[in-house]
Amino acid sequence: MNKSKLKPRMGRPPVLENARNRILEEAALLFGKDGFDNGSLSVVAERLGVSKAAVYHYFGSKQEIYDAIIIRTLEGLLIFVGNSVATSKGGEAKLKSFMTAHASYFEENYWSFVCMLIGYGGMANPGLKFEATQKRVEYESILRKIVAEGIADGTFRNVDVTTASHSVLSMLNWMVRWFNPNGPKRAEEFALEYFELLTLGLSSRQ
Amino acid sequence: MNKSKLKPRMGRPPVLENARNRILEEAALLFGKDGFDNGSLSVVAERLGVSKAAVYHYFGSKQEIYDAIIIRTLEGLLIFVGNSVATSKGGEAKLKSFMTAHASYFEENYWSFVCMLIGYGGMANPGLKFEATQKRVEYESILRKIVAEGIADGTFRNVDVTTASHSVLSMLNWMVRWFNPNGPKRAEEFALEYFELLTLGLSSRQ
Repeated sequence: MNKSKLKPRMGRPPVLENARNRILEEAALLFGKDGFDNGSLSVVAERLGVSKAAVYHYFGSKQEIYDAIIIRTLEGLLIFVGNSVATSKGGEAKLKSFMTAHASYFEENYWSFVCMLIGYGGMANPGLKFEATQKRVEYESILRKIVAEGIADGTFRNVDVTTASHSVLSMLNWMVRWFNPNGPKRAEEFALEYFELLTLGLSSRQ
Repeated sequence: MNKSKLKPRMGRPPVLENARNRILEEAALLFGKDGFDNGSLSVVAERLGVSKAAVYHYFGSKQEIYDAIIIRTLEGLLIFVGNSVATSKGGEAKLKSFMTAHASYFEENYWSFVCMLIGYGGMANPGLKFEATQKRVEYESILRKIVAEGIADGTFRNVDVTTASHSVLSMLNWMVRWFNPNGPKRAEEFALEYFELLTLGLSSRQ
């Protein structure tokens, strides 16, 4: 591992090897914008200023790159959101951390996230697909635990944990369909508004 | 129009011509399950017990069928949910109608909905694409009106209309990613749980 090439950044998936990650980021941008079928690895190579053979030195196929984008994005999400939740105290603060950290990570890794949420069903390697499912379950369990503990200590009403978790993830994940990374408002701000609406409720009967 | 072939059903898009609609429904099932690129019109023809030429008598191409599925699904959604909301009185009842009618329609037209939500960006005909966008805006405006009127008459807290509308549509639309049409619970029941969570809120501070 060439340490001089490491560029650790908040909200980034763990950086292990620079070339590999640069390929994944360029490919995510391409697949996210043009679609997996239309995206060519020649374009990825050209944008990175290397030969197509150099790209194939790291990944055997376009599909392999796609699978790697998804695993890397989920891995980074788990670590970033997990750490953010771990440093917060109490059900409401933990839920707020979960939602805002998820949104920050989403915005920071926008194209990889687009690939992941739109291309999730398209993973080819069964082992990696299993790994991705496990990571998704692990991620959801962080959220379920926040809700369940909040109900247990009286912070939250006695709601159904699955319904509440699905609500939170729906709001956050659907952002991929309407959020504009070049717009005036950050994803984290939208997440904060969702958090307030969801905790306080829409009804004025209080 | 052959009236004997009409089968009007609650929650169905308007039935204009049976052959056309049978093609759209078979194609939606195929595209939804196998993806647009993998779905072949030969399979659609075979399942309908007609020749491929018979399918091409109604639609010029696979893409044309895709575009027609999206327009038909949006059109039916607008009519069905619009009627349901119109017969309800008061902000909470109207919101409940919107959410449960949307979920019923989604379940009743499951594969067309999967096509619509996963393939929206893929419409080819610019005129139809514009029409689809207009219908989506019109649909959202039904929801925005419910929220705005509810705030105006004091039923709802003074929340941001866009945030609240986005929340509702996120919960409902994201169901396409996890709802199991063969599972024990109906989509409408999930929508009712979302409605209660969203109106009453998660927090116990009341």
